[in-house]
Amino acid sequence: MAGPSLPHDPDGAMRAWLLGPRAENADLFERLVTEALRDHVFWRRNHHPEDGFTITEADKRRPGYDAAVATMKQELLGLLAELKQGVPFFSGRYKGHMNYEQTMASQIGYFAAMLFNPNNVAVEGSPVTTRLELKVARQLAEMVGYDPAASWGHLTGGGTVANLQSIWVARNLLYFPLAAYGTAAALGVDLDVALPEGGRAPITSLDLWRLLNISNDAALDLWERLWAAAPAADVRAALDEHSLQAQGYQEYGRRIAHAFPDPLPPGVVIVSATAHYSWEKIVRALGIGSNQLVYVPVDHRYRIDPDALWETIGRLTERRQPILACVTVNGTTEESAVDRLDRVLEVRERAERELGVAFHLHSDSAYGGYAAAVTRAADGSRRTAEQIRASTGIDWPDEGWVRSMEALAQADSITIDPHKLGYVPYPAGAFLLRDRRARALVSIDPPYLQPAEGVEEGDDLFLGKYIFEGSKPGAAAAAVWLSHQVLPLDERGYGHLVERTVVGARRLYGALREADLDPFRLVLLPEPDINIVCYIATHPACADLQRVNALNEGIYARMSLNTPGAQPEYIITRTRFTSPMYDGAVVPLLDALGVSEDAWRERADGLVVLRSTVMDPFLGSGAGPDHARGFVEALGRACEAAYAALEGV
Amino acid sequence: MAGPSLPHDPDGAMRAWLLGPRAENADLFERLVTEALRDHVFWRRNHHPEDGFTITEADKRRPGYDAAVATMKQELLGLLAELKQGVPFFSGRYKGHMNYEQTMASQIGYFAAMLFNPNNVAVEGSPVTTRLELKVARQLAEMVGYDPAASWGHLTGGGTVANLQSIWVARNLLYFPLAAYGTAAALGVDLDVALPEGGRAPITSLDLWRLLNISNDAALDLWERLWAAAPAADVRAALDEHSLQAQGYQEYGRRIAHAFPDPLPPGVVIVSATAHYSWEKIVRALGIGSNQLVYVPVDHRYRIDPDALWETIGRLTERRQPILACVTVNGTTEESAVDRLDRVLEVRERAERELGVAFHLHSDSAYGGYAAAVTRAADGSRRTAEQIRASTGIDWPDEGWVRSMEALAQADSITIDPHKLGYVPYPAGAFLLRDRRARALVSIDPPYLQPAEGVEEGDDLFLGKYIFEGSKPGAAAAAVWLSHQVLPLDERGYGHLVERTVVGARRLYGALREADLDPFRLVLLPEPDINIVCYIATHPACADLQRVNALNEGIYARMSLNTPGAQPEYIITRTRFTSPMYDGAVVPLLDALGVSEDAWRERADGLVVLRSTVMDPFLGSGAGPDHARGFVEALGRACEAAYAALEGV
Repeated sequence: MAGPSLPHDPDGAMRAWLLGPRAENADLFERLVTEALRDHVFWRRNHHPEDGFTITEADKRRPGYDAAVATMKQELLGLLAELKQGVPFFSGRYKGHMNYEQTMASQIGYFAAMLFNPNNVAVEGSPVTTRLELKVARQLAEMVGYDPAASWGHLTGGGTVANLQSIWVARNLLYFPLAAYGTAAALGVDLDVALPEGGRAPITSLDLWRLLNISNDAALDLWERLWAAAPAADVRAALDEHSLQAQGYQEYGRRIAHAFPDPLPPGVVIVSATAHYSWEKIVRALGIGSNQLVYVPVDHRYRIDPDALWETIGRLTERRQPILACVTVNGTTEESAVDRLDRVLEVRERAERELGVAFHLHSDSAYGGYAAAVTRAADGSRRTAEQIRASTGIDWPDEGWVRSMEALAQADSITIDPHKLGYVPYPAGAFLLRDRRARALVSIDPPYLQPAEGVEEGDDLFLGKYIFEGSKPGAAAAAVWLSHQVLPLDERGYGHLVERTVVGARRLYGALREADLDPFRLVLLPEPDINIVCYIATHPACADLQRVNALNEGIYARMSLNTPGAQPEYIITRTRFTSPMYDGAVVPLLDALGVSEDAWRERADGLVVLRSTVMDPFLGSGAGPDHARGFVEALGRACEAAYAALEGV
Repeated sequence: MAGPSLPHDPDGAMRAWLLGPRAENADLFERLVTEALRDHVFWRRNHHPEDGFTITEADKRRPGYDAAVATMKQELLGLLAELKQGVPFFSGRYKGHMNYEQTMASQIGYFAAMLFNPNNVAVEGSPVTTRLELKVARQLAEMVGYDPAASWGHLTGGGTVANLQSIWVARNLLYFPLAAYGTAAALGVDLDVALPEGGRAPITSLDLWRLLNISNDAALDLWERLWAAAPAADVRAALDEHSLQAQGYQEYGRRIAHAFPDPLPPGVVIVSATAHYSWEKIVRALGIGSNQLVYVPVDHRYRIDPDALWETIGRLTERRQPILACVTVNGTTEESAVDRLDRVLEVRERAERELGVAFHLHSDSAYGGYAAAVTRAADGSRRTAEQIRASTGIDWPDEGWVRSMEALAQADSITIDPHKLGYVPYPAGAFLLRDRRARALVSIDPPYLQPAEGVEEGDDLFLGKYIFEGSKPGAAAAAVWLSHQVLPLDERGYGHLVERTVVGARRLYGALREADLDPFRLVLLPEPDINIVCYIATHPACADLQRVNALNEGIYARMSLNTPGAQPEYIITRTRFTSPMYDGAVVPLLDALGVSEDAWRERADGLVVLRSTVMDPFLGSGAGPDHARGFVEALGRACEAAYAALEGV
């Protein structure tokens, strides 16, 4: 972390964190890249210099050498020319997806480590970067409020794999008490377990429904006691006979149906209706089935509705349908909405107390995870909403937002993508587990499949044992680590960066709200929880949804690079709000557009919504050109052009 | 691809492909890195120059700016110092895991594209690199002999994810005829389907066992005809009612048990006994269960035994146990053994013909895939074994090896990791599908869940729709692409590179076989199919397996960086051959060591085997120091030191 003796001037520091929209820091960047490269070069030169040279200067005169160099140069020039047809994410004129430039620290860190190409699957191929990966996971754990000694985490290729891991762990936790039931019987031992509503009971006294409703903490305590109750080899063998992981769903289902009078309907995964589409992939691939994904409606702020969640749990309980996991979203992909995790936790407590129902709670913070840095002061303590507002200078955040971020500390697992609001290059997702003991349930190395006795570093360093992926770039860990060193995960670093983007998003929001685009009119979603602004343009002649959608598709076509030959002044993106996902949220928009809810439900393509992510921190700091004004003007011109084309048809 | 007018001097070219063990090409590398960086910088400068500057020179005098630069430099210097405690993969003295340096083209390509940070999940965030990814997949498809127009492929974060996809596709293909059976009944249509043993039958006439034994080709034809038989919306809705993906295993199992008198035992995945440990992860995570992983013994060359495979299929057929997929390995992780895929294909044909049994055949070519480049001449035609031997100058490869590589063209899917024998930085795996139609079965976007009508580029460019991962680095695609441009996937490029490593491995093998380390003795595995050399040291006083293992662990400790403070002259790694995986292979080794098979079976840690991957092409080209001799001498010293320590205990 940056030393405490440095001046507190995060807005000044911010100007050194990024290469800059005009590559203002190009000299510095090039110097450091060159430094990293030469440092590596001389490492090679100094490694057993007695070995002499393998490629000689004479070799460099060989015709093949010369031809290969010519090819490499020519093809690189071709690549460089092509790359410039890419998206200018760095520009203040890019207001589309969750993309911007990366911190210089992360890019230089990535490049420096890439030259060594460490493989973080195991420490043997990455003595340095595996340790950096664990440090980074610890920093993220501290940011969200996990106990660093009790928790565990690592990097992944992205949010999808991290989310997969959450369900993989959750499923094994859900079925573990059932496996323990069979294992205990086989070993002739009995163990009691804590019940969600309080009290304890011997596991052999529980029916299937109760066995599938043991809290994570109680299940992990049971895990430890089971291993202590008999020789490890016996426990292992018996667990293999009784675990879903070993038997697979088909055989396991057969055995449950044989052993229990009521085999229960399939386990479900509850998700916020705004959840990312990857959740559907995950439940399909994992054999859970997309029909077992239960969507909970969101409110008008696009946040999960706690009352609807309670009703959903009640309905599932009546059907005696076990809950594999409940997934809430911290920063939805479309709107950057922050589910009120504190309220979800209240619902879960009530479900345990009143219904005896327990489940794994996962926070998909792929996008919003780094926003938790806003709640941290330089000394690691929590900032109040009032303190943060004093720093943002706007009416953000409210108490509820801060409580949602603080509640992350109680989620059982969290996905956070450094390659989103962490401003580091792809690929860098992260998976965090509140209770490190749970990783043993997905461990792959049977001889080591035992409860952890304290932290064993040697074991920690073989990541491949506990994670889904295998070979993975140590360079990603170096990138995230170096970025965290330069931008601490608090008000001095990432907290400031994210704050400024929220201020910028609100500035853009205000400009859109105040915009006079007569005869066009903009319908805005509520002010965003983080930094994604969504809006819909309309015109008095756009009387039905089809025309409203056509107008907005036309605007999008004029403000994106998706259309061949387009040279947009500003770049945006768009999404579609469809039924039933957006049922609870979309009514105020439809009302403002003068479109009936029925008309919306009938359309498979739903409502086309324009979308601008503000990851550019300079808009909110007032530096550089006034892109809020420029954006509104460009949007006005796009409205006119799109409408004219619509009329022409 | 390199122009045909360039001189054929791949050995000269090879010296320009790599930075070099002494960073001999540092000047060239630095020039091209700087070129890429400046090209990007001036792209930013030229983008709407009227926007002016956001970070000013005055800003650079702010105390916060200065402090942030100081922190960044200091922390970078710290990182650079730490990185040098990493593994010198680049050195001829590194003979451990499958690691070496990367091609300069791939590193520069990665760096150049990383500055733009494209996201290959969808073309909107990666107009250039998504197309490069598809080009790369096509190049790999051509190398293995797939029809580029009929096949499909993409990059992944690594082999584990690519392997996951193979099982995801295979499972959906396996259960599709069953879903079609229900769907056809619901829609009131009937369709016939080709049977594996020949002939056709209406699907409604088939029992469950027959429905789960339809070949991929027949299933995909059925898929197309089903969509043509009724309106798309109806087919989609009916399929959702009858597909495993939608229902999940639990509900699906219930329905099958209800609909069919004999619901059959669980589906299995057959794998070569030498398969990577990730296969166990995959079947666990996907709900298939690790007990449903059926290992087929390998022969003394560590290749899947075709007769044992035939017996396994017969046994499964007797139990009426459906086969989800059969996985063969092209380049095992431990030994670089190449399964005789041509013989496996014969077994599959026989199973279809004689048993009416059909299954998906996957080749896990994560390691060995790039070796197929050896079989390609510059014009894309196949080289014969004799032609290749003329070029290697040694007795490699034999006809069987070449036929195994040629047989890849008939595998249903293939995993190939560019970040292994492709010499590109992590992360870069690849997944190839022989019949592109199969990707529709894992597509996530229901409105587009329709059979492809010819190649639609727009659809191809939204990769996130068909792949498991989401956000992913476009830089990886640029890296692989640029490397393929400089090193074509034939005898001029990768073919030559891999050839030289095989020659190098054989040279090391010969040096070990001839080594006089008296009183120590080396027991070698057979000559490797590619370039991994495995050996075990012993001593007359090492009478039992425990002592043999202890001696080899001691050697490993002295020849690895795993031991704190170790400064090994050469670096190796080790593995353990355990029962029952290695039952078919290990007897000659145990005989040579004078250890009984029973003693080996009793030990959970199996037989410790020392392992050296030769990815260094210079050992085989005779350039640079004589690392074969140096290696043997260092090994001799390590033997003595390890034995002395053993005696001292």
